[in-house]
Amino acid sequence: MFGLTVRDHMMIAHSFNGEVFGPAQKLHGATYVVDVTFERHQLDEDDLIVDIGLASEVLKDILSEFNMKNLDEIPELAGRNTTTEFMARMVFDRVARAIHEGRLGETGRGIASLKVTLSESHIAWASYHAGI
Amino acid sequence: MFGLTVRDHMMIAHSFNGEVFGPAQKLHGATYVVDVTFERHQLDEDDLIVDIGLASEVLKDILSEFNMKNLDEIPELAGRNTTTEFMARMVFDRVARAIHEGRLGETGRGIASLKVTLSESHIAWASYHAGI
Amino acid sequence: MFGLTVRDHMMIAHSFNGEVFGPAQKLHGATYVVDVTFERHQLDEDDLIVDIGLASEVLKDILSEFNMKNLDEIPELAGRNTTTEFMARMVFDRVARAIHEGRLGETGRGIASLKVTLSESHIAWASYHAGI
Amino acid sequence: MFGLTVRDHMMIAHSFNGEVFGPAQKLHGATYVVDVTFERHQLDEDDLIVDIGLASEVLKDILSEFNMKNLDEIPELAGRNTTTEFMARMVFDRVARAIHEGRLGETGRGIASLKVTLSESHIAWASYHAGI
Amino acid sequence: MFGLTVRDHMMIAHSFNGEVFGPAQKLHGATYVVDVTFERHQLDEDDLIVDIGLASEVLKDILSEFNMKNLDEIPELAGRNTTTEFMARMVFDRVARAIHEGRLGETGRGIASLKVTLSESHIAWASYHAGI
Amino acid sequence: MFGLTVRDHMMIAHSFNGEVFGPAQKLHGATYVVDVTFERHQLDEDDLIVDIGLASEVLKDILSEFNMKNLDEIPELAGRNTTTEFMARMVFDRVARAIHEGRLGETGRGIASLKVTLSESHIAWASYHAGI
Repeated sequence: MFGLTVRDHMMIAHSFNGEVFGPAQKLHGATYVVDVTFERHQLDEDDLIVDIGLASEVLKDILSEFNMKNLDEIPELAGRNTTTEFMARMVFDRVARAIHEGRLGETGRGIASLKVTLSESHIAWASYHAGI
Repeated sequence: MFGLTVRDHMMIAHSFNGEVFGPAQKLHGATYVVDVTFERHQLDEDDLIVDIGLASEVLKDILSEFNMKNLDEIPELAGRNTTTEFMARMVFDRVARAIHEGRLGETGRGIASLKVTLSESHIAWASYHAGI
Repeated sequence: MFGLTVRDHMMIAHSFNGEVFGPAQKLHGATYVVDVTFERHQLDEDDLIVDIGLASEVLKDILSEFNMKNLDEIPELAGRNTTTEFMARMVFDRVARAIHEGRLGETGRGIASLKVTLSESHIAWASYHAGI
Repeated sequence: MFGLTVRDHMMIAHSFNGEVFGPAQKLHGATYVVDVTFERHQLDEDDLIVDIGLASEVLKDILSEFNMKNLDEIPELAGRNTTTEFMARMVFDRVARAIHEGRLGETGRGIASLKVTLSESHIAWASYHAGI
Repeated sequence: MFGLTVRDHMMIAHSFNGEVFGPAQKLHGATYVVDVTFERHQLDEDDLIVDIGLASEVLKDILSEFNMKNLDEIPELAGRNTTTEFMARMVFDRVARAIHEGRLGETGRGIASLKVTLSESHIAWASYHAGI
Repeated sequence: MFGLTVRDHMMIAHSFNGEVFGPAQKLHGATYVVDVTFERHQLDEDDLIVDIGLASEVLKDILSEFNMKNLDEIPELAGRNTTTEFMARMVFDRVARAIHEGRLGETGRGIASLKVTLSESHIAWASYHAGI
C-alpha cells in the first residue's frame, strides 16, 4: 500500500460535557496539527498517489470550516464532545467527501483509504483510519 | 479504526548477551520515549477512545517498574535481551493487563488493540502492535 | 553559559483586538508547548543548573494559572492581546518570580537568565529571553 | 506484529514530466529522510527483529545508489516520475532484495514485511508498505 | 529580547566546487526547511513582534526566488558555493531588505535583528544571526 | 554570526550522588542526542563554516569515548555527577580541543565559539555555549 501525507493545522476553542473531562469542561482551546494520509494500491500514470498541491489546498479549505472558531458554536457539532478523536473523524468525513466529489481530480478517485491524525500537543494525538 | 496515543519516557541501564550486540554487550543505557496507541472501532458515549488523563497515569505507573533502573537486575527479565523491541512488548503486556483489570475505566474495556512504540534515539525506534 | 530546558504545555481559548488579527479577532484557541530554559554561568556543587524535578513542578504550577482557561476572562490580562509572544513574557515573569522566591531551591538563585518559548503550531513559535 | 525502524537520508536532484507537476517540471531537488521499518511476527533467539547495525549499513549502502545524484540521469529510472511515493517503492524493492539475499543475516530472513517512508519536508511524506 | 519564528521550505538543485565537497561536487539537491526569527526589544502596540500572516507571506515570496530551481543557474549566485550556511545568509539579506522597505508593515520596522536557520536534514542545519 | 549544527547520539549508563537526585541515585541510563553548533563570523573561502563530513566524523569519534559505556567507570569523571549539563561541557571541551589541534582542518581554526546541546528526552535538554 502506498501512502502520501500532507500536514496543516487549525486553532480552535471548545468545551466538553461530562465529569470525565474534569477541568476541560470549561472553555479552553487547542492547536490541532492535522496530518491526512491518502492511501492507494497502485500509483497513477504520473507516478503519484494524489496531486499534492491539490490535496494541500483541499485540506486547507476543509480546515477553514473549524479554524479560528469556537467549536461550541457550530450547529453540526452540537451535542457532541469535540474531542481530538471525534474531530479526526470530522476531518476524515470531509476529505472522503471531497474525493468522491472529484475535488482531488479524476485520478484522486483511486484513493482506497484515508488516515487523519490530529496532534493536540507534543504528548497526545488521535487518528481515524478507514476505507472510503 | 480510531487511535489515541499518549507519550511518556523512561531512562534505564542494561547490557546484552550475544556477539551480534558488539559493544552493546557492556553495561550502557537508554532513554526510551514511549508512545502507547489505544485503538477501538467506535468512540464511547463521551466521544472518547479512552480517558486520556487516566491513560497517562496508568502509563506512568507502568513505566515506573523500569524507569531509573538497571534492567539486568529485574528478575522477570533475566535471561532475555532487553532490546527496544522486547521492551515494547513488555510495556504492551502491562497496558493490556491494566485494561483487562478495568484500570482504564469501564469504557476502556472497549479497546480492541494497542500499539506500543519505544524510541531509543532520533534514528531508531521499535514497536509492538496487536489485539488485546 | 549553561542552559537546561524543560517542556510542558497548556491549552487555552482567547480572542484578539485589532484589525491586524483578521479572523483571529473571534474566539478561538491554541495549544502552547512551553519550553523554559534556565541559564547560569557555573554549575552548582551537584553539577546541576537546577533541580529538574523541581523545575518541572514549578512550571506545571505556573501553567495551571492559564491551562484549560479562556484567557479573555483573566482580569490581569484584560486590555492586552494574549499573543504567543505576550504569553511567553507572562510565563517568563512568573518563572523569574518563582526563582526569586526560592521556589527552585537555594542553588536555583544562581540562575542568571531565562528563555521561554511557546510553540503555537509546527510552523510558528515565539520566545522571550532576558536576565532575571 | 513487531516493527523496528532505522532512519537515514539522501539528497537528490530531479525534474518531473506532466502538467500536474507545475513548477516542479523544472530541475530542482529534495532531501529525503528515509525511515525503513522491518516487521516480523516473532523476535529471533536474541530478542531482535533484525541486527540494527547491519540494517543501518545496508540502508546506507542502498541510498548511496541515489544520494548526491541527479535522478534524471539514472538509466533504471528513465521514463518515470521520481516522486516521493515512487522513490519509497524503489527503496522498498532494494531492501527486500537485500533481505532475500541474506544481507541482513540468516535471522533477517524472518522479516515478513517492510514499510519505507520518505519525508520530503516538514509538511509532506510518502510511504510504501507491503509483505516481502 | 522577544523572538517570533515562522517556518516554510524550499526544494532546490545545486552542485559545489572544491575538493572539500567530495561527491557533493556533482549535481544533487536539498529540501531546506527555513525558520526565520524576528527579534525586537519591545512588543508593538498590538502586543506583537510582527504580523505573523504578513511575515509568512513575505517569507514565501522570498523563497519563491529559489524554490523549485537549480541554484547553479541563478546569475546572482554564480561563483559561490550555495552551501546551507551561505543560503541562510541569502534569505537573511532578503528578509532584512523587505523589513527596510516596509513590507512587514510600519511596526515591522521595530525589528532589531533576525536569525535565519535552514535545515537540510534531520542531522544538519545552519543559521545566520545578526542585527539589521 | 553563522552557525552549523551536526547531530549524533550516545547511549550511556550512570548514577548520581546527592539527595537532590532522588531515584536517579541508582544506576540507570540515558540516550543523549548530541547537537554541536560551530559558530564563526565569516564563511571560509569555500563558503563553509566547517567541513560537515569532517565535523561529523570528529563528533562520532569524541562520543565513542562515552557511547555504550557506564560513565561511573570512567576515571576522568570520578567524583562528578555526569548530569546532562555536565556532559554537554565534557563534549564541548573535546570538540574545542579537536579544533585547536587542527582536526577540523585549517579553516576550522576560524571557529569562534561552540554550542553543545544534549537532549535526554522529548521534554528535557541541556547545553553549554562559549567561545573557544
